[in-house]
Amino acid sequence: MSSQQKNEFSEKLMISADGQLKASQKIPQIARPFVSEKALKYLDIVEKFVEEECIPADAVFSQQIGDSVKQRFSGHPAIIEDLKKRARELGLWNMFLPRNHFKEGAGFSNLEYGLMAEYLGKSRTASEATNCAAPDTGNMEVLAKYGTQAQKDKWLKPLLEGHIRSAFLMTEPDVASSDATNITLDITREGNEYVLNGSKWWSSGAGDPRCQIYITMGKTDKNNPSPYKQQSVVLVPADTPGITIHRMLGVFGYDDAPHGHGHIFFKNVRVPLDHMVLGEGRGFEIIQGRLGPGRIHHAMRSIGAAEKALELFVARLNDPRKKAFGKLLNEHGVMIERIAKSRVEIDSARLSVLNAAITIDTKDAKFALKEIAEAKILVPTMALKVIDRAIQAYGGAGVSQDTPLANMYAQGRTMRIVDGPDEVHLLQLGRNENKRGKFLLDRLAWQRKKSEEMAAKHGMQLRDVLQLDRVMSEKSKL
Amino acid sequence: MSSQQKNEFSEKLMISADGQLKASQKIPQIARPFVSEKALKYLDIVEKFVEEECIPADAVFSQQIGDSVKQRFSGHPAIIEDLKKRARELGLWNMFLPRNHFKEGAGFSNLEYGLMAEYLGKSRTASEATNCAAPDTGNMEVLAKYGTQAQKDKWLKPLLEGHIRSAFLMTEPDVASSDATNITLDITREGNEYVLNGSKWWSSGAGDPRCQIYITMGKTDKNNPSPYKQQSVVLVPADTPGITIHRMLGVFGYDDAPHGHGHIFFKNVRVPLDHMVLGEGRGFEIIQGRLGPGRIHHAMRSIGAAEKALELFVARLNDPRKKAFGKLLNEHGVMIERIAKSRVEIDSARLSVLNAAITIDTKDAKFALKEIAEAKILVPTMALKVIDRAIQAYGGAGVSQDTPLANMYAQGRTMRIVDGPDEVHLLQLGRNENKRGKFLLDRLAWQRKKSEEMAAKHGMQLRDVLQLDRVMSEKSKL
Amino acid sequence: MSSQQKNEFSEKLMISADGQLKASQKIPQIARPFVSEKALKYLDIVEKFVEEECIPADAVFSQQIGDSVKQRFSGHPAIIEDLKKRARELGLWNMFLPRNHFKEGAGFSNLEYGLMAEYLGKSRTASEATNCAAPDTGNMEVLAKYGTQAQKDKWLKPLLEGHIRSAFLMTEPDVASSDATNITLDITREGNEYVLNGSKWWSSGAGDPRCQIYITMGKTDKNNPSPYKQQSVVLVPADTPGITIHRMLGVFGYDDAPHGHGHIFFKNVRVPLDHMVLGEGRGFEIIQGRLGPGRIHHAMRSIGAAEKALELFVARLNDPRKKAFGKLLNEHGVMIERIAKSRVEIDSARLSVLNAAITIDTKDAKFALKEIAEAKILVPTMALKVIDRAIQAYGGAGVSQDTPLANMYAQGRTMRIVDGPDEVHLLQLGRNENKRGKFLLDRLAWQRKKSEEMAAKHGMQLRDVLQLDRVMSEKSKL
Amino acid sequence: MSSQQKNEFSEKLMISADGQLKASQKIPQIARPFVSEKALKYLDIVEKFVEEECIPADAVFSQQIGDSVKQRFSGHPAIIEDLKKRARELGLWNMFLPRNHFKEGAGFSNLEYGLMAEYLGKSRTASEATNCAAPDTGNMEVLAKYGTQAQKDKWLKPLLEGHIRSAFLMTEPDVASSDATNITLDITREGNEYVLNGSKWWSSGAGDPRCQIYITMGKTDKNNPSPYKQQSVVLVPADTPGITIHRMLGVFGYDDAPHGHGHIFFKNVRVPLDHMVLGEGRGFEIIQGRLGPGRIHHAMRSIGAAEKALELFVARLNDPRKKAFGKLLNEHGVMIERIAKSRVEIDSARLSVLNAAITIDTKDAKFALKEIAEAKILVPTMALKVIDRAIQAYGGAGVSQDTPLANMYAQGRTMRIVDGPDEVHLLQLGRNENKRGKFLLDRLAWQRKKSEEMAAKHGMQLRDVLQLDRVMSEKSKL
Repeated sequence: MSSQQKNEFSEKLMISADGQLKASQKIPQIARPFVSEKALKYLDIVEKFVEEECIPADAVFSQQIGDSVKQRFSGHPAIIEDLKKRARELGLWNMFLPRNHFKEGAGFSNLEYGLMAEYLGKSRTASEATNCAAPDTGNMEVLAKYGTQAQKDKWLKPLLEGHIRSAFLMTEPDVASSDATNITLDITREGNEYVLNGSKWWSSGAGDPRCQIYITMGKTDKNNPSPYKQQSVVLVPADTPGITIHRMLGVFGYDDAPHGHGHIFFKNVRVPLDHMVLGEGRGFEIIQGRLGPGRIHHAMRSIGAAEKALELFVARLNDPRKKAFGKLLNEHGVMIERIAKSRVEIDSARLSVLNAAITIDTKDAKFALKEIAEAKILVPTMALKVIDRAIQAYGGAGVSQDTPLANMYAQGRTMRIVDGPDEVHLLQLGRNENKRGKFLLDRLAWQRKKSEEMAAKHGMQLRDVLQLDRVMSEKSKL
Repeated sequence: MSSQQKNEFSEKLMISADGQLKASQKIPQIARPFVSEKALKYLDIVEKFVEEECIPADAVFSQQIGDSVKQRFSGHPAIIEDLKKRARELGLWNMFLPRNHFKEGAGFSNLEYGLMAEYLGKSRTASEATNCAAPDTGNMEVLAKYGTQAQKDKWLKPLLEGHIRSAFLMTEPDVASSDATNITLDITREGNEYVLNGSKWWSSGAGDPRCQIYITMGKTDKNNPSPYKQQSVVLVPADTPGITIHRMLGVFGYDDAPHGHGHIFFKNVRVPLDHMVLGEGRGFEIIQGRLGPGRIHHAMRSIGAAEKALELFVARLNDPRKKAFGKLLNEHGVMIERIAKSRVEIDSARLSVLNAAITIDTKDAKFALKEIAEAKILVPTMALKVIDRAIQAYGGAGVSQDTPLANMYAQGRTMRIVDGPDEVHLLQLGRNENKRGKFLLDRLAWQRKKSEEMAAKHGMQLRDVLQLDRVMSEKSKL
Repeated sequence: MSSQQKNEFSEKLMISADGQLKASQKIPQIARPFVSEKALKYLDIVEKFVEEECIPADAVFSQQIGDSVKQRFSGHPAIIEDLKKRARELGLWNMFLPRNHFKEGAGFSNLEYGLMAEYLGKSRTASEATNCAAPDTGNMEVLAKYGTQAQKDKWLKPLLEGHIRSAFLMTEPDVASSDATNITLDITREGNEYVLNGSKWWSSGAGDPRCQIYITMGKTDKNNPSPYKQQSVVLVPADTPGITIHRMLGVFGYDDAPHGHGHIFFKNVRVPLDHMVLGEGRGFEIIQGRLGPGRIHHAMRSIGAAEKALELFVARLNDPRKKAFGKLLNEHGVMIERIAKSRVEIDSARLSVLNAAITIDTKDAKFALKEIAEAKILVPTMALKVIDRAIQAYGGAGVSQDTPLANMYAQGRTMRIVDGPDEVHLLQLGRNENKRGKFLLDRLAWQRKKSEEMAAKHGMQLRDVLQLDRVMSEKSKL
Repeated sequence: MSSQQKNEFSEKLMISADGQLKASQKIPQIARPFVSEKALKYLDIVEKFVEEECIPADAVFSQQIGDSVKQRFSGHPAIIEDLKKRARELGLWNMFLPRNHFKEGAGFSNLEYGLMAEYLGKSRTASEATNCAAPDTGNMEVLAKYGTQAQKDKWLKPLLEGHIRSAFLMTEPDVASSDATNITLDITREGNEYVLNGSKWWSSGAGDPRCQIYITMGKTDKNNPSPYKQQSVVLVPADTPGITIHRMLGVFGYDDAPHGHGHIFFKNVRVPLDHMVLGEGRGFEIIQGRLGPGRIHHAMRSIGAAEKALELFVARLNDPRKKAFGKLLNEHGVMIERIAKSRVEIDSARLSVLNAAITIDTKDAKFALKEIAEAKILVPTMALKVIDRAIQAYGGAGVSQDTPLANMYAQGRTMRIVDGPDEVHLLQLGRNENKRGKFLLDRLAWQRKKSEEMAAKHGMQLRDVLQLDRVMSEKSKL
């Protein structure tokens, strides 16, 4: 077979594999009806911005953070402000706020922003550069949705401008936080103040000197008979007396500075009554509303990380210096198969997230719980597999600072834990599926009876018997 | 927490888990824009027909086939004609022929039929009952697309009516058939006849006494310099002298009677010249066109099989007689987690198939090769996992004839082999993905250079260096 | 590198890969101290007998069974008697009976027989040929260990001679049999007889016309407060009035004739009082004693099946006719990697079984429960993986009757179910491991305290705190 | 069932699960014949030392290293000297040097030390405390085996005393180091000196200020026709002019200070001719001899890490504060199953390593290549699985510095890369296994012929044909 013929034949498969296809051209056919012309245009701008400005800035950012612990959590890498300026010029700002619920955002749907978030996930700096970084995104949603005008003026406005940052304080060190009813931080009303006592950890973003507001969940009514009415959410300025950042937590060996993950002590921390969000006992309601879109954002950024890992993997296979046993790595079938599996797994997981985003857009997050849970379960495990394969192809470079892979793996690993560990989501999904049990048993029994009637009409008596049917039909004799 | 409160909270997750939701209500949100009102209506009719008539008929069908080998491959279970009659009454006939290419079908798109095929896949008899059974479906497409009027009158018409059945003879026992250029059956022109010599196996459907036509691929020009121009497809009546069904092949221990899988010998089998399809040397073109939609059909039926297995699994967990260690199986968290994983995996795989179907509908199968390959790779492995979990929950009943599970597993296992084994599709996908190598290396080098410029602007020199970038930048110094 | 040099370098790896090494030379170094000279000699004879006589006989055996259901369960393939005669000549008879407990056997330890059983597992006929086939092996152990002299004379003697066969009737269709306390077959004493009523299934071996004795477990005392004292084991001649073989069960479409798996009804089946084994209420004791070595036998035969599958896999890769995409399969790295993984997994699983066998030999089965459970869990999943890879390499031939692979897969799949499904063994192992919980928590707390003392001695106070330690030390403050 | 009865029944499973069993009592039965009385005694001392002194010291060690990069790679945690002093008192020193090859060690076999290494692997400090830390262990073996008396006096003696540390410089950044023939560091003889130019990375241990000697592999004869004769090993004092530690590499964010992993530049580094080890061109021979036991040490330490992770997992499940959804984690079956799987996988992998160690002891490392490769492939993947499960059970604490789990994961991940990535070992094992191809094909053909003879003797002709046999028998007709 001549090489020309070979090309003709395989050309057909090339379509979306061509590196030069733009982001807007790679949207899965099934999702296209949901994407506006405007979003198509901005999606390509996002891709260009990420590839041409953010990814190159990542290395500069890493180095500007510095070496000593003190330095890393007190400075602010200058490059990030360059990027923010550029992003605003390009119109890439606050794209995460869905147009059907918020007037403050850039006017995209959850699906459209989801498509963009994939590209943001390829770079360490891109989300912050476009003011789309967690946990600010969820916090801005909370403030926009539930905040009083005064609360909005004071905190939402500077957040929307990217002038300050924020943290969401929910997780606690000494309880099983996967079950949010377990939280214990005490919020007691004393006169015209709330007094907070307790501790929080995994307070992400609390390390950044620009983080000025802690949106804090605690219990105002721990004896309320409903376990979902005991919690409240209070706005606590970061510099309120009584707050100590006890220490910063690592993720594997990374400190994620300057952002960071704080372990924070509250000792008689006092805030005015008007710092309560929505009202006492409505904390659960607030976190419920906050979680859906945030999980989609996380998931789409993870898809982006997986795509980035796959790109690095493919590049490695074609690196002319890395011949092993006389062959370039791309001649090793084992490697090619891993590339292919990664492609299949990424594409399939992406569809799951896009479907969840569309369900949120179409029917609201509370009717998309199954779809969100599925994406939440599926994506991190997929991303870890893809990233791990790339690490293996890089060998020593893969676990070191010379590629972003090890860091992406560490981030990805936390995704199986944050916003509820896999097990909790699986348990809920499974129990829900299990509710079909009675219906299914009844239907099987009905089908069995019909089957016997059909057999009788053909002059036969059935010999083998579906286990379940027998159980049911015997039961019905009782 | 009162039980009432518990319900309120988890109710939200119930939406699509309620057994009473109809098929049309369960379509993933992302696929809805592609489904017509008519298709929604017929989809619900399909579901009803399958659940209320076909599944009950399955047990009757199995028993009517009989016991001895001879009996099993010579009769025709009467129940199937009952079902066909009923299906035609309901308007469920030839739904597989896509409306944008064929006027002969029921007027649905590939996506719409795909949604229906899922339900057909839950029953052993449903596909044949609606005249949507492989390999007739693909064979009818070939005849409709490439046949002469005479060929259509003779073979397509009775196939469309469900009066006869057909087989597609491609695979051969003594070559690596995953590479179709390897086939060897000889087709030599002698006067006004073609003479065929060789052997074929896995000729599915050849066991049925109603199978009257073999669409046969062989080589008319084995010395053609293009390995894709050597093959031709010829129509061979099943009763042509020189044809022997040497034996029937089993799948695990199943003979799949009366359909079956033949091992067939051709010894000087003669057919007139007008039995050639499309023209000599155009065999590859024909099979290329045949494969895309067929893979989608297989995949969607496998999704249906997986859903059926999951239903049986859930039913088992709720079987009041099956208490192990003092608990119903549905109280065992391990089982609940498997249910949940199955739900996630099925739903995600379905989206992959639906996206492929939509890509075929929108852009044609030849632009959907990647999407088809992904679904082809993803679905069988998923289905096997789900079915295997259900088997394990049933124990002895799961491997026996008392559930359809073991049979579904055996069928599912062949799906990793037919139409090209997983490895071939992975190899093609992987090689295709690998073509991005040069582009990605260039982009990484460009990003590296930009990174250095950015650092310089900030008065820094970069310390750590992306492995690949270094290689490339050092190379550029040469 | 010259080809000569290449060989020198890789020669070192060849040692146990050389096809000509004998069985006795392939015993893992770690197991050698436990194997006598006599066993080494007989192990090689077993291998030779299996490879040169039994494997060639397998195809003849399959064909001699016949085609119709009736024929398959009424005849006795003549070839099996040829093999039995030859086996006795070679001294290969009843090797399974361990020398330290039984005088009736060939004088080997459980380990030594285990090594032999691996080779028996490579052929369908070898176990019966050497009178080492389940369930006769376990049944003979029961009779030898617990039988009266009269029981031994009547049943053990002809079993040891291979003149009759036997079945063990424990599993029941309508309860969760994985929990043996659930069985319900009623045994009521009436005068000088026991009267049995109920049903059993998966009565393996009951299909063989030579099967003359059913060792049957039922309940004589269902109200006994101890759930382990309610059961008794009774010897029931197969031709006792009131017994009906309702039907034979399939395993993935295989009927396993003539052996088979019976679904049997007992209706007022009467046996004399002296047919009780060991005494009323001692059924649990009997099955406990029966299970350990039997699981080792199953596991070692599965190891042999996996080795056979791997041999077929390797052979396929070197089949000169099976070139795919211009290369022999053995040039495809993906295939080579699967070969290697299979080798690693088989060898590791074998060590687990051998260790369990040695633990039984050294300390008795009741002190080897953990080791037996580990082998029971590990081996079937391993074997299925290896066999499945081989099936995939064979494609269509792999799922059909043209290789033993699909049948081996079906057999292997039941191994995850029989003698307790994986889940039950995992649950027991896990609960047992979990008993270390308190000890481990206490030790962690102790280590934490010691850690603080050490830090104090160095003038430091510890900053980070092991989660668990903190919990414990805080608890200790209470 | 009364709780008493329950205990009686499950007691049997408790044997090795009881936390109080000593190390010597937990040795798998199969390995016992290989362990001397002395080793049993010292094994228990090792366990006690690790649990009571090293593990408590780990937290102190971590904190003594300090915070800033400079500090971390220039100091020497004082606690380590406390431990070393104590270890020597206990006679726990240099246990790694096998008695059959070296007189300098503590007189144990590879197996015996392997059993001890498992316990050392549970603590971060234990290996160094007993002078059994890599890479010193392999380096001491090299010097003891191949060094001149002068080399031994200068370097081996202080290493054996624990006064200095060492590094082995093989891996290079710009080649595929998994293939050692690719290394490029140039060693040119000039007069009475060797001059070294090039770079090395992953020079583990080079960060420690006490590291005084680099055992360095390079090429003295890059044009030698044998790719295995081009390399030499030279002793290079760490303070030789021309050496720069360019930077230290991270492993998932960990710097592994003070040990560390150096990226080192060599620019005209000069050493006297007598610093050559064994002779020019003998570098391959040296690394071959070095790798076997080292892989066993790594593997057994990884087993220990996995056991430690499992202990932490079990402890977590019993932590009274961590109730999720109303249950202690140990009541969640999903968790119990993971505990059980971990137990099975650890125990099986350990047997594989022990068998490899025994094979080295009995037959020498060069006859144990297969066994070593199997352990090398099996253990890291197993350990990562076990550790990852524990991480998931701990949630946030699992990825942070509050447990050793994340660090153990990072270390474990490198084990799939160092000393050759998994893929290289699988490729070698697979190719080796594949050499049986011709033998197996021939045997299958022979068996097929025998099968036909047997059939003929029974008056039959075989119908179904083993695929491979047919190929072979047809070939034989040619």
